[in-house]
Amino acid sequence: MAGPHPAVAALRAAVRPGLSATTGLVLVACSGGADSVALAAALAFEAPRSGRPVGAVTVDHGLQPGSAEQARRTAALLRSLRLAPVLVVPVTVGTAGGPEAAAREARGAALRAAAAEHGATVALGHTLDDQAETVLLGLARGSGPRSVGGMVEHRAPFWRPLLGVRREATRAACAAQELPVWDDPWNTDPAYTRVRLRSEVLPLLDEVLGGGVAPALARTAALLREDLDALDALAADELGALLGADGALPAGPLAQLPAALRRRVLRGWLLRAGVPDLQAVHLAAVDALLTRWRGQGQADLPGGTGVVRASGRLTVQRGPRPAARPAIDPLEEP
Amino acid sequence: MAGPHPAVAALRAAVRPGLSATTGLVLVACSGGADSVALAAALAFEAPRSGRPVGAVTVDHGLQPGSAEQARRTAALLRSLRLAPVLVVPVTVGTAGGPEAAAREARGAALRAAAAEHGATVALGHTLDDQAETVLLGLARGSGPRSVGGMVEHRAPFWRPLLGVRREATRAACAAQELPVWDDPWNTDPAYTRVRLRSEVLPLLDEVLGGGVAPALARTAALLREDLDALDALAADELGALLGADGALPAGPLAQLPAALRRRVLRGWLLRAGVPDLQAVHLAAVDALLTRWRGQGQADLPGGTGVVRASGRLTVQRGPRPAARPAIDPLEEP
Repeated sequence: MAGPHPAVAALRAAVRPGLSATTGLVLVACSGGADSVALAAALAFEAPRSGRPVGAVTVDHGLQPGSAEQARRTAALLRSLRLAPVLVVPVTVGTAGGPEAAAREARGAALRAAAAEHGATVALGHTLDDQAETVLLGLARGSGPRSVGGMVEHRAPFWRPLLGVRREATRAACAAQELPVWDDPWNTDPAYTRVRLRSEVLPLLDEVLGGGVAPALARTAALLREDLDALDALAADELGALLGADGALPAGPLAQLPAALRRRVLRGWLLRAGVPDLQAVHLAAVDALLTRWRGQGQADLPGGTGVVRASGRLTVQRGPRPAARPAIDPLEEP
Repeated sequence: MAGPHPAVAALRAAVRPGLSATTGLVLVACSGGADSVALAAALAFEAPRSGRPVGAVTVDHGLQPGSAEQARRTAALLRSLRLAPVLVVPVTVGTAGGPEAAAREARGAALRAAAAEHGATVALGHTLDDQAETVLLGLARGSGPRSVGGMVEHRAPFWRPLLGVRREATRAACAAQELPVWDDPWNTDPAYTRVRLRSEVLPLLDEVLGGGVAPALARTAALLREDLDALDALAADELGALLGADGALPAGPLAQLPAALRRRVLRGWLLRAGVPDLQAVHLAAVDALLTRWRGQGQADLPGGTGVVRASGRLTVQRGPRPAARPAIDPLEEP
């Protein structure tokens, strides 16, 4: 007996480990495009073998005429794969940050809500090619090391089992299983940055470098995530060890940490203290209380909060800024 | 009185801090191109103000007809800037790794030799645009996180004061000072990967993303270097703390480190033990003695060396591999 088409086998192998490693309902987020349809089919095949219930959720962005009809067609396809439940969630897309970001935001919120309501993990069809685009975009925008690390396979409630699978494999798997695929016109509209990265920049890079660019980007991103995860974990340990019962941090030991660790400790501390909208500029101001200490006053932070250094300790201040600047601690050299 | 042209002022400001922070002779590596001529002029201007002697070295790659004549012209220009000494170093370029890599290799060796002979720091004219190309190239080739971190400003004997300066500023500075610039035909030959990155890929990325790509790449690279430097420093500390007087490492504490740190500790340990040509595959084999321990024998390494786990400790073995595989330590569960 002939086995399944190699692409079908590859998709099933990609979802199998994650499916058996966890428990509870899985909802495939399915747009009707090749990536998420191939993912839905692979999960539908593996679901009874793993003993896990697998359903699906399709989001109707309401941005194109006939989008509700397209969502119904996708839902019917998902039901024909014996997925249950199959949810159709209409959303209202705003305008903040441009159409791509607004649609992503609305979709993300709808999927999180579905995950919370059903106690489910949401499986996303992002492929190795999506990962490469994300990494290149993060790098070219200067969004910092974490963005160059790309997407992670597991981050509750999301699961991305296809990050090691090429986009062409999902298309081949759909064709081999005679699954209808809907090509979202947005995916080829050159008005969108990601579309141009996909259709122009990455092919040119591939030509210039002799191929293999997308897997190379994905590989570097994976190593980078490991490095950044290690730093984050070390910073969390360091914060746990340094944090006083009063919620203050000792300036001396903190100042001696390497910059990359020190900024992560400060960031974790301020987030834990509930400081909202923390930006790089705020972190730099707090860091200056450690590395460029000359007896300066409060480092102002969003939400009317701030950080003060006194008696060799950093403390988060709340409410309106005190009228008088704190006195310089005579025990500390500015 | 009008000050210098803004580009000239920017170049001088870029070299000033590094020039006053260190001591000894500086040799500008100068090809005769705009970047290194502008650097030479800036250093020539700042040299008497800093009290540091500044000379120059120009490498004749011997790859083009008239290259010796071009090197002589560049040397004459450098002498006219009152740099001393001005060295002309002919090199023989091999073929290993392709023409770009072979020329870089030969040039690097000649500059290191000049630095060693004169006890000098070698100043290189790499700009922010070179940095962006390096980072993109490292990412697209999958050469690992460190390559995405790009070039560093100080790594003896080299110093790159222009990593924050745009290439167009060096050209403007040369024009403003009426300095003749030699345009190396290699710099526009589309047979070279870097030339195509510079002339095709980065301009396309800039167009797609609305500009600012090169500074964004350089900014992310700088943050990344800080992160990677921190991990390297933490790994070095960890190695120092774990290393026994007998040169062995305890498996238990090592296995509990995050992967990114553990692999760095192992790498530092093996390099210190003189293991040559260490590749990722070797590191993975040694790491398996920690993370997938099932009583396996020696992890083979280059140069007839290897690592053995016995009595809960990792030891580097030298010479031919022992005929019998080491017995499983009864105290350790495989």
